[in-house]
Amino acid sequence: MSPRTSFDATVLTMFPEAFPGPLGVSLIGTAWREQGLWSLETVDIRGFSKDKRGFLDDTPAGGGPGQVMKADVIGAALDSVEIRGRPLLCMSARGRPLTQARVREWAKAPGIIVLCGRFEGVDQRVLDARGFEEVAVGDAVLAGGEVAAMLVIEACVRLVPGVLGQAESIRDESFEDGLLEYPQYTRPRTFEGLDIPEVLVSGDHGKVAKWRQQMREETTRERRPDLWAAYLANQQAKGGKAQGE
Amino acid sequence: MSPRTSFDATVLTMFPEAFPGPLGVSLIGTAWREQGLWSLETVDIRGFSKDKRGFLDDTPAGGGPGQVMKADVIGAALDSVEIRGRPLLCMSARGRPLTQARVREWAKAPGIIVLCGRFEGVDQRVLDARGFEEVAVGDAVLAGGEVAAMLVIEACVRLVPGVLGQAESIRDESFEDGLLEYPQYTRPRTFEGLDIPEVLVSGDHGKVAKWRQQMREETTRERRPDLWAAYLANQQAKGGKAQGE
Repeated sequence: MSPRTSFDATVLTMFPEAFPGPLGVSLIGTAWREQGLWSLETVDIRGFSKDKRGFLDDTPAGGGPGQVMKADVIGAALDSVEIRGRPLLCMSARGRPLTQARVREWAKAPGIIVLCGRFEGVDQRVLDARGFEEVAVGDAVLAGGEVAAMLVIEACVRLVPGVLGQAESIRDESFEDGLLEYPQYTRPRTFEGLDIPEVLVSGDHGKVAKWRQQMREETTRERRPDLWAAYLANQQAKGGKAQGE
Repeated sequence: MSPRTSFDATVLTMFPEAFPGPLGVSLIGTAWREQGLWSLETVDIRGFSKDKRGFLDDTPAGGGPGQVMKADVIGAALDSVEIRGRPLLCMSARGRPLTQARVREWAKAPGIIVLCGRFEGVDQRVLDARGFEEVAVGDAVLAGGEVAAMLVIEACVRLVPGVLGQAESIRDESFEDGLLEYPQYTRPRTFEGLDIPEVLVSGDHGKVAKWRQQMREETTRERRPDLWAAYLANQQAKGGKAQGE
């Protein structure tokens, strides 16, 4: 029986001992351990092997290197979990890229169930039959889906009401409106010969806002041409005009 | 003094207790703990506050919500580390997106030094002055950079010679050549009414290769229009032609 909190995360993994790891610290960890605002359950896939030796992988159909996680073992592991309307995610380099828009949707669900792929991947039939959404986190190849699962869970949990206290604001952060954030500065006024940009200590709120918007546009254009193109298209559709055009 | 292995990872973090977490399990963990093929060192940023109360953050210059990590504290934390030519990375939603190409370069270095941002971010001056590369992992907002740091470290370490044994192949994986991987299947032949695709059990290696290439192209086109466009441009430049065109 899964616990019932505002957000119940269940992870299907070969390495339950990797959890909670970073999910156990900071406000996210406190919200779990002390406040009970969300829950973390791990299901050890190894326990569902029908093989006496505990194997849960086999060679790829059609040949090729490595091993594939067996559909029947994953299916049995999932059958042990109460789904309760929670989205099923499989962390996989083949997936659609993670976006904050998807995170916002998942965060509104009763929780998520996340399958951590290992080896060459998971037999596609269990993903198709059970309706797993394949999700990729960054264009890099990992040893397994565990770290990616933690990333998705952290991104969701910080949006659960009450998890972030007054100490940490839910910001108008990067990605929320399609532009990267402006650079930040704080005391001391001079650090290793570098001053805080003059405009930020001018006290002119209008100038500060204008400079920050300009920095957001410049940084996005330089570092994220994909987001910049989408932002421009969106501005044009609204009849507006970006400062940086 | 940092240890000297094939790949020495140093993490500057407010939450050293989050580590090793997922980096301590599986072949990655064995390569660290038992084989000494790579090392993991955490530096607790809190220890470098010059404030009696241990503060390491202050309000943003120019106003706005939240707190900013102080340049002098981060600078002092970094001064405690032997850099030894290792790239300096700062995990930040403002960064350039992680790519497997960057991972391959970092994996060839003596290691990496990773700063985990928290709050509204890090005072930009210490990033500029010390030459940190800002790196983003997925278009999602996190509570801090710790999980993202683990993701980068795992991606690098699996490329360190000797870390992945024969049990896990370094594959022609997704992103290595610009296309996502083909779907995988393994025994049993039928799972919940779904058969392994006929071609994969045909024994015709030519047909299998052709089908897999077609699946890679279809999946990439559908899930990653960005990678697909780059692949087509690359094929055109080489004078070739993708099957899926």
